[in-house]
Amino acid sequence: MSILVVGSVAFDDVTSPSGSVKNILGGAATYFSLAASYFTRVRVVGVVGEDFGPEQEKVFTSRGIDTRGLERAQGKTFRWGGSYMDNLNEAKTDYTDLNVFETFQPRIPAEYEDTEFLFLANIQPTLQAGVRRHMQRVRLTGCDTMNYWINRTPKELAETLKLVDVLLINDTEAKMLAHETNLPRAAQKVLAMGPQALVIKHGEYGATIFFREGAFGIGRHPFRAPTLPIDEVKDPTGAGDSFAGGFMGYLASQEELNREVLKRALFYGGVMGSFAVERFGTERLQNLTREEIDARFQIFRELTHLE
Amino acid sequence: MSILVVGSVAFDDVTSPSGSVKNILGGAATYFSLAASYFTRVRVVGVVGEDFGPEQEKVFTSRGIDTRGLERAQGKTFRWGGSYMDNLNEAKTDYTDLNVFETFQPRIPAEYEDTEFLFLANIQPTLQAGVRRHMQRVRLTGCDTMNYWINRTPKELAETLKLVDVLLINDTEAKMLAHETNLPRAAQKVLAMGPQALVIKHGEYGATIFFREGAFGIGRHPFRAPTLPIDEVKDPTGAGDSFAGGFMGYLASQEELNREVLKRALFYGGVMGSFAVERFGTERLQNLTREEIDARFQIFRELTHLE
Repeated sequence: MSILVVGSVAFDDVTSPSGSVKNILGGAATYFSLAASYFTRVRVVGVVGEDFGPEQEKVFTSRGIDTRGLERAQGKTFRWGGSYMDNLNEAKTDYTDLNVFETFQPRIPAEYEDTEFLFLANIQPTLQAGVRRHMQRVRLTGCDTMNYWINRTPKELAETLKLVDVLLINDTEAKMLAHETNLPRAAQKVLAMGPQALVIKHGEYGATIFFREGAFGIGRHPFRAPTLPIDEVKDPTGAGDSFAGGFMGYLASQEELNREVLKRALFYGGVMGSFAVERFGTERLQNLTREEIDARFQIFRELTHLE
Repeated sequence: MSILVVGSVAFDDVTSPSGSVKNILGGAATYFSLAASYFTRVRVVGVVGEDFGPEQEKVFTSRGIDTRGLERAQGKTFRWGGSYMDNLNEAKTDYTDLNVFETFQPRIPAEYEDTEFLFLANIQPTLQAGVRRHMQRVRLTGCDTMNYWINRTPKELAETLKLVDVLLINDTEAKMLAHETNLPRAAQKVLAMGPQALVIKHGEYGATIFFREGAFGIGRHPFRAPTLPIDEVKDPTGAGDSFAGGFMGYLASQEELNREVLKRALFYGGVMGSFAVERFGTERLQNLTREEIDARFQIFRELTHLE
């Protein structure tokens, strides 16, 4: 099956304790697409500027990602600069130049309308809702958001949450969205807003998926997947989007959505996130093999499973 | 087999978002003893004052804990007051009255000298080392410490670490002890100081055990156990000591120390910690059954295991 991701494509400047890179390809839709491309056919909707050339295009197409939904606009591509000198778990944003992304209006190519899985990366909630309503044949919708939208556009976000099946956010965002500091209680409050399932990403501690009572017919017991303790996290940028790409990509590759498939998807999310942070930018995600991915999946299993 | 714990017995005043209690029995050795008592025979060495009466004694003896090593001194028992109003993961200490604990010199009853497992709860490192050297027939020693000793008595602590098999500390302590912010690298540095294994407790995210190359003949791949997402953490006091009690108590109940036993011990640590926080003080740990413990072990397994 195929999956459509709608979100940002960007150029990033990143500084971490491991070094500094400039002008590398980034953006939520980019990390998501690459991670998901190891599992299923990926289609992308986003906007880039005149500085986005064949070299960047090739990062997508060489992984078989369909870029017909990548609009070329006059001006520059979205640019972001951030550093992780004090804390690898949280970027300090140096600058954000929205450029062509400022007026982004997602346009879905007609050829994409049969897509069965949808991921709404972190963009303005009303745009997310518009895409979701447009995509009539979607079976399952995943969604990301961030503190900016939680604080600035709570009503719009609430409308979007009614339309999505799985929300993927981090601990801080979940607590903020629910106005609740206890994580399991926050999860229940967020699920009451609409999603069938909520994936809370705990950074270096892995992720937990919480379910609504009756969601997917599989009961409400949560499930927790690890991440790999990594000796050198070179660049945490895109880890969450790569997680979402592994999670959603694996779901889109399966015929049936049952509890076991959702559990394995959470593991694949962690696996793809763990690869992403090993190199700056998308480097590691560009040249993986399914064998490497499944070998790491096995390491994740050994890290957590009793005999 | 039997296990000896050396550490504090205290009276606590605790305030959390769930309420406030005064003058309840606490202390590291207390939580540890109760948690371990569901797995093996427990002996305790500590000191109490004249305010420690039959009611407190009975908390130990009704769980079959051997209190012959509990010295009665003139004066008051150690008293601690803390609150968790802002952060359930970290206590704000309101006061510490060491009282009889200030001059505590562990005295091991002759009847305890055949003990095969030893846990050195968080006390002055030189006292820990003295107990370890005294206990000639010990097969495995676990040890706790805290930021106070890491900062104030690093040399003494380094000597103690050479004598212990498993160190159990939290993320912040591990990073502080290793002077290293990356957790897996911090773990390797701590292991180079002496212990065969290092258990790092991640609070609500569970715990990871790291091994030295060749430790226990089981290879160095880490293993991670969860904690249970709990809707209402009433009182986090003693969670770490209860974790240690479950971990060490289970080890002491096993004939052989292999990788699988250490993995299961980490799960039992999380299980006992999760019970401890459900009620104020030691209440929940006083009246468990092995069936309840194993049922929760099973929930921990379902929370983390793929089919």
